[in-house]
Order: sequence, then C-alpha cells, then structure tokens
Amino acid sequence: MTDIATRVYNHDWKIDPIVRSVLDTDFYKLLMGQTIFRRHPGTRVTFGIHNRTSSIRLADIIDIGALREQLDHVRSLSLTRGESTWLRGNMFYGKRQMFSPDYVAWLEGFRFPAYHLEKWDGQYELVFEGPWVETTMWEIPALAIINELRSRAVLKGMGKFELQILYARAMTRVWEKVEFLKTLAPIKIADFGTRRRHGFLWQDWCVQALIEGLGEGFLGTSNCLIAMRREVEATGTNAHELPMVYAALARSDAELAWSPYQVLADWQEDYEGNLRVILPDTFGTAGFLAHAPDWVAQWTGIRIDSKEPVAGGEEAIAWWRARGQDPREKLAIFSDALDVEEVARIHRAFNGRIRMGFGWGTLLTNDFRGLVPNGALDPISIVCKVISANGHAAVKLSDNPTKAMGPPAEIARYKRIFEVGAQEARPALV
Amino acid sequence: MTDIATRVYNHDWKIDPIVRSVLDTDFYKLLMGQTIFRRHPGTRVTFGIHNRTSSIRLADIIDIGALREQLDHVRSLSLTRGESTWLRGNMFYGKRQMFSPDYVAWLEGFRFPAYHLEKWDGQYELVFEGPWVETTMWEIPALAIINELRSRAVLKGMGKFELQILYARAMTRVWEKVEFLKTLAPIKIADFGTRRRHGFLWQDWCVQALIEGLGEGFLGTSNCLIAMRREVEATGTNAHELPMVYAALARSDAELAWSPYQVLADWQEDYEGNLRVILPDTFGTAGFLAHAPDWVAQWTGIRIDSKEPVAGGEEAIAWWRARGQDPREKLAIFSDALDVEEVARIHRAFNGRIRMGFGWGTLLTNDFRGLVPNGALDPISIVCKVISANGHAAVKLSDNPTKAMGPPAEIARYKRIFEVGAQEARPALV
Repeated sequence: MTDIATRVYNHDWKIDPIVRSVLDTDFYKLLMGQTIFRRHPGTRVTFGIHNRTSSIRLADIIDIGALREQLDHVRSLSLTRGESTWLRGNMFYGKRQMFSPDYVAWLEGFRFPAYHLEKWDGQYELVFEGPWVETTMWEIPALAIINELRSRAVLKGMGKFELQILYARAMTRVWEKVEFLKTLAPIKIADFGTRRRHGFLWQDWCVQALIEGLGEGFLGTSNCLIAMRREVEATGTNAHELPMVYAALARSDAELAWSPYQVLADWQEDYEGNLRVILPDTFGTAGFLAHAPDWVAQWTGIRIDSKEPVAGGEEAIAWWRARGQDPREKLAIFSDALDVEEVARIHRAFNGRIRMGFGWGTLLTNDFRGLVPNGALDPISIVCKVISANGHAAVKLSDNPTKAMGPPAEIARYKRIFEVGAQEARPALV
Repeated sequence: MTDIATRVYNHDWKIDPIVRSVLDTDFYKLLMGQTIFRRHPGTRVTFGIHNRTSSIRLADIIDIGALREQLDHVRSLSLTRGESTWLRGNMFYGKRQMFSPDYVAWLEGFRFPAYHLEKWDGQYELVFEGPWVETTMWEIPALAIINELRSRAVLKGMGKFELQILYARAMTRVWEKVEFLKTLAPIKIADFGTRRRHGFLWQDWCVQALIEGLGEGFLGTSNCLIAMRREVEATGTNAHELPMVYAALARSDAELAWSPYQVLADWQEDYEGNLRVILPDTFGTAGFLAHAPDWVAQWTGIRIDSKEPVAGGEEAIAWWRARGQDPREKLAIFSDALDVEEVARIHRAFNGRIRMGFGWGTLLTNDFRGLVPNGALDPISIVCKVISANGHAAVKLSDNPTKAMGPPAEIARYKRIFEVGAQEARPALV
C-alpha cells in the first residue's frame, strides 16, 4: 500500500505530476471519442471550465504557474505500449475489440491540444479549442488537475503527522461508508469520481477499498488507468456533450428537436448491451421521453442525473410501462451527487422494481468535508462543458435550472423546441 | 513514514522478529544494569512473567513455537557498533559518559541468557534464571514479545483494508489525545510504553506523533533504540527490582528494614540530578517516607506509582515540607496506568505546586480498546518481576494490595517490618 501521507508531504517537489497517463481519464471519453472519431472528425468544439461554487476563488488558491506546469505536463503525455495493448486486448462490457484498430491507432498518435488560460474575477478561465475528438479529451484531466491543485494548496502548510491523521480520518470515513453499503447488499456500485477526486492516489485507494469491501457489489471504476492497474471493469457510457454538440450543429428547429435521438441512433450502431443507456435530461427528461421513438424504449437502461432521483426513476418506470417494456428488466444508473444515505434511499425505493447501478463520484473520492478548518477541502461543483461547436453556441437545460448553460436567447429557444415547462431548482452541491 | 498496515499484513513471514536490538529496551534497565554490574556481579536473580489479566488465556492465543522463535531470536542479538557508540558518546540526562567503559564493554559481550518456558493453566510460565546483571535484561523484550505476539494473533485473520482502517482509527485516537494534551501546556510527557506496546513500529509511530505534536512538551522515550534513532532523550530511572532484591538478600530484620534506603545510598553514588528520583512504594510509601533519612528528602524527586496519584502527590508534598524542602523545586513523576484524562486531573491538582513529569505507557502505545470485536486487542496487565535472589523469595507490597507478590508468610513479615497498615485496593487495569 502506498503511504499517501508521505507522498502528499513531498508534493512540493519541482513538479509532482497529477495526471501521468492518457488513460487517467473516464472510460466514457474513449467510447464517445470513438464515435466522434468515426462520425465527426471535422467538427470543432470548444470546451471550458466552469466553477459553479463561485465562493471558492480558485485563482486566489491555485498558483497559475503550477497550473500551467500541470497542464503542460499533460500535453507531453502519449499512450504507452502497455496501455494500447490493454485497449486492444481487454474485454469491456463483455465484449472484445470494443475499440477499432483505427481509433486505437489514432489514440496512439494523440497529443493533448493547446489550452487558453486566464484569470478572471478570482476564477480561472480555461478553454480548449480545436477538433472535437481532441478537445473532448481535456475534460477529465483538466478537472482532476484543478481539484488536486486546490487540495495540495490546502495541504501544503500541514505537518507530517497532521497529514497522516487527515488521511486516517478520511480513510475511516470511506470505510464506514463501505460497511454501510454492504448492509444494502445486493447492491451494485461503481466509482465515478475521477474528475473531482481529492487526488489520484486517493482515488486509487478508494477503489481498492471498494474492491475489498464490496466484493461482488463493486461494478468497476470509470477511471481507465485504475481499471487497468487494479484489473477491474472500466465503466461509463456517454455524456451531455453528445446531444449538446449535435444540437448546436442542427440547421433547423426540426433538426434540433431530433438531435438527441440522432445521438442515440448513432450510438446504437457503435455500442450494444449495457452501453445502451439513455441520458435523457440534456434538454429536459419529460419532453425527451414523450417524443422518443419506440426503439429508444428498447434500450437497456437510463441514467438519472439532474432530476430528483426517485422522481426520475418513477418517471422512467412509467414510461417503460407505457411503451410496453418490463421495468424489471431495465437498468437505471443513478449518478448525481450521491452519498451513501442517498444510495440507500434510492435502493429502498426501487429494490425489486428495476435493476439499479450507482455511479458514486465526488463523495466517494473527495469527501474531506469538515476535516480541515473552514471546510477548505470540501468539494466544489466544477465542470468542463461544451461552449460551442463549429462556432455555434452550445446549450444545456437539464432537469435542474441551476445546471442550465448557454446564451439566454438560445436557452429560451431550446426550452420552446423541447417543450420544457416549469422546472424545480435544486442546489448543485457537487 | 512506514506503512504499518502493510508490514502487519506481512507478519506471517517465516519470522518477523519483534525485538531486533539489545537497545530495544527501557533505558532504566541500563542504568540499573550498571549499578548491578558494579555492586552485585555475583548475585543470581530469577525473573518470571505474570499475567495479572488471567481471563486472557495467552497460551491459547499465542503459539508456543512462535514464542520460542522470538525468544530465541533475542538470544542471537548483540550490541551493534553504532549502538555501542551511542551509549559511549551520547549525552544522557545532561551528562556525558553516563555509562563507564567497563560496563559498555560488558554490554558489548552480553548475550541474553537461557529461558524456561512452559504452559500452565492457559498461561505461559516464562522464567529467567542466572546472574542478575543478565536476567534483568529479559524483562522488557519478554513482555514486548508476548504483547506483540498477542496482537499479531488477533490481526492475522484481517484483510488489508481492515488493517489499514484499524490503524487509521488508532492513529486518530492517539492524535486526538496529543491534541488534548497540548491544551494543558506547559506539560512534560515521556513515552514509557515499550513493555506493553502493540508493536515496535506502532511505538515508534507514537513517539514520532509526540515529537511533532507536543514539541517542547515531549520529554523523550524510555526506549533506547527509538531514542537513538529519533534523536530524542532516553528517559527512566529505576524500578522495584532493586529494593526487592536488596530486601531478599537482607540477613536480618534490621537489614531488611534498611534495604530500600541502601538502594538509594548506592544509587546516589552512581547517578545525580534528575536521576535521583525515589520510588517509595515497593514496601509501602507511608512507612518508607516516615523512616527515610534526611538525605533522601534532598533527592530531586519522587515517582508516584501504585498509589492513587493525587493522594500520592499530596503525601510527597507534605513529607517534603516536613523535611524542610520546597516542593516547588521538587519533581514528581507519575506513571501508573495513565491516560490523558488522568494526566489532566493530576496536572490540575499540582500545577504550580511541584514540577511534574508524566510517564505515559500502555495507553499511549497500546490503546486499541474497542477497535476489534470482543476487545481482543484491549491491553492486558502483564509484568516480569523478580521471584527470588540467591534462592531467597522476593516480595513486593506496593501501595495497592492487588499488585502485591511473594509467598504469603514473607508478605506478612514484610508488612510487619515495614509497618504497613490497611491499604486501599485498586484494580490493576494495565
């Protein structure tokens, strides 16, 4: 076992790289990457970092030089031989050769594209412009770097034993959560915590704790590098960026209305089985489900993200029933701001009614709440989202207006076209 | 920092030696050893292990083969060159050349003498017979081995992460105690926990936590090896074995009555300053103080051991006053079954009235109470005491009849000669 406290104590070496591998990213980036590589090689997409927890002035906490060093280090990375072998030879979601030789070959030659970094009003403006298939790769490392640099800034002044006790307390907390989750067995949980993790070593420790603690109840990790090293499943499907870009590229209101289904039409040509999981909330779940073609209801499952999860699950069950599907054969993936009490509540609500999977993210890999003064290690809600595609502004509505993004006029247009009515605002904690 | 959980996980290697150095012992054994070497080279003393926590059947928990292996390993040890250099060159209690060249030369040639080991009624009978200067050296390693083998037996079935969380919780507990002690500053605390430690690595960790956490408030450790490696003070003075042996060798009632003072008369020829600390309770504190010659009252301090500590401190203050001494210049060392609440209580009682030092033992280096089911790691009260000297039975009365030892007829004789009246029994927890 790595002694995390010692390593953290040594963090102010010249540079202790945060992201050391192209595969230190979420699996869904590779799945989406392959679809983008095949279908949208010429599309240019701009991504940008947005810190929704604006009270935390990241530019005052994180040194811009250190941030540049870490981002520059990512630009020096390339896929290693062993990593490439793993992508080509490993079985993902029960299938061999998930990634085509031409996509892996492209990935072998891939280098992270340039970034634009500025300070503005206490926050960092960090923007990635270029071919979609390249810029999409920045989402996870950029977020992981910012989150870990923030952790390091807080940890820097602490003594060796203070650090060791900090990690002792955090480990005990994770383990007590794992012991609680065991009482809910059978339950299926995956680590979705790469982007907002406290640090790489910490995420790796959390995954190992889940392996030992949950046994069969552990589905895997979204982190490709950790999945490879720990020999567990790499998990994940797709994200809002697909419908957001498809929508931004639509040339008419009719194309815009169809765009979220076009995403699925493309996706099901590329992937099958448990990878056919709808993410319905990009422009409002209700309208998405109401207007969906019947073949969408035949997909394996649904991801409940921005909607209150029990309401979201009930909505999905009602919809499947209305479309002649048996909900007990369907899979619902819950993944929004989960912690164990919330997992237990959702599990109680749907146990025996649908198949469930839980994507446990920030509050698995970054629950240092209250462990240092002033909550300086409490996680923040930071995202890396599509801003525009081929020059057209991108929009996300979601089921929670707190999470909406895009120019106001475009948001209004999208709300009209996707028939989004009143929405319930919920705070975006993490 | 060593990753203790990993090391413990590897404990069932062929042999993972518990005691790896002649200096992995308490400093007072060397101080007493030098006095014995000079004055009693021909005296033969038998020591024996006694587990006062008889409900814990050590012979059922600890494998006799493993115990023999560990004891045999100790017999293979000899002082290393660096250790010898440290004894010759280091400053102890403000003094250089505390140990004379002839004693260090003897120690360089020293090998641990034979032991006798048998099972009896669920306990181990472990006895050391031979020259006092040799057998005295077994006390600490024998106790440390038994305590650590018991810990290892309990830890053996645990998973890697269970172990890591166990240590995370134990570390957090120690650190919270240290943080509490800081609130009592200025306070002076030493580690006295070698004999009943959870394990060597754990004691070493605890000492480092005290170094970082207490700063100037940390007096040092009784463990010579850790003092040498961590470059802190080695602490300790003398123990009950000196008056017990001197008393057992007395050839008349008058010699017996004088024997505890003869110990001090010899001691003050060998040691000065803060090493002149009376241990008055071997045959009852009240009688000892009442009959003590005036030069005893001129000593630097007193160790309060088996008596209720506030009562013991008040008794010492009254005695010093009666002998024309200023208690504010005197030192009281408290060392019996201390934990932080007890330290705070004693500190409140005597702050500003006497100088105080605290020898924190078992509940520093072995507080795993309640951390595994059935309290299987709760510390036990186990001692290694003088049984006889030159064939005469040894006796200890102390201020707590629970701790008395020796043949009943001899106990009665000692009580008469040392004028011991009614005593208050207190449970011997650790």
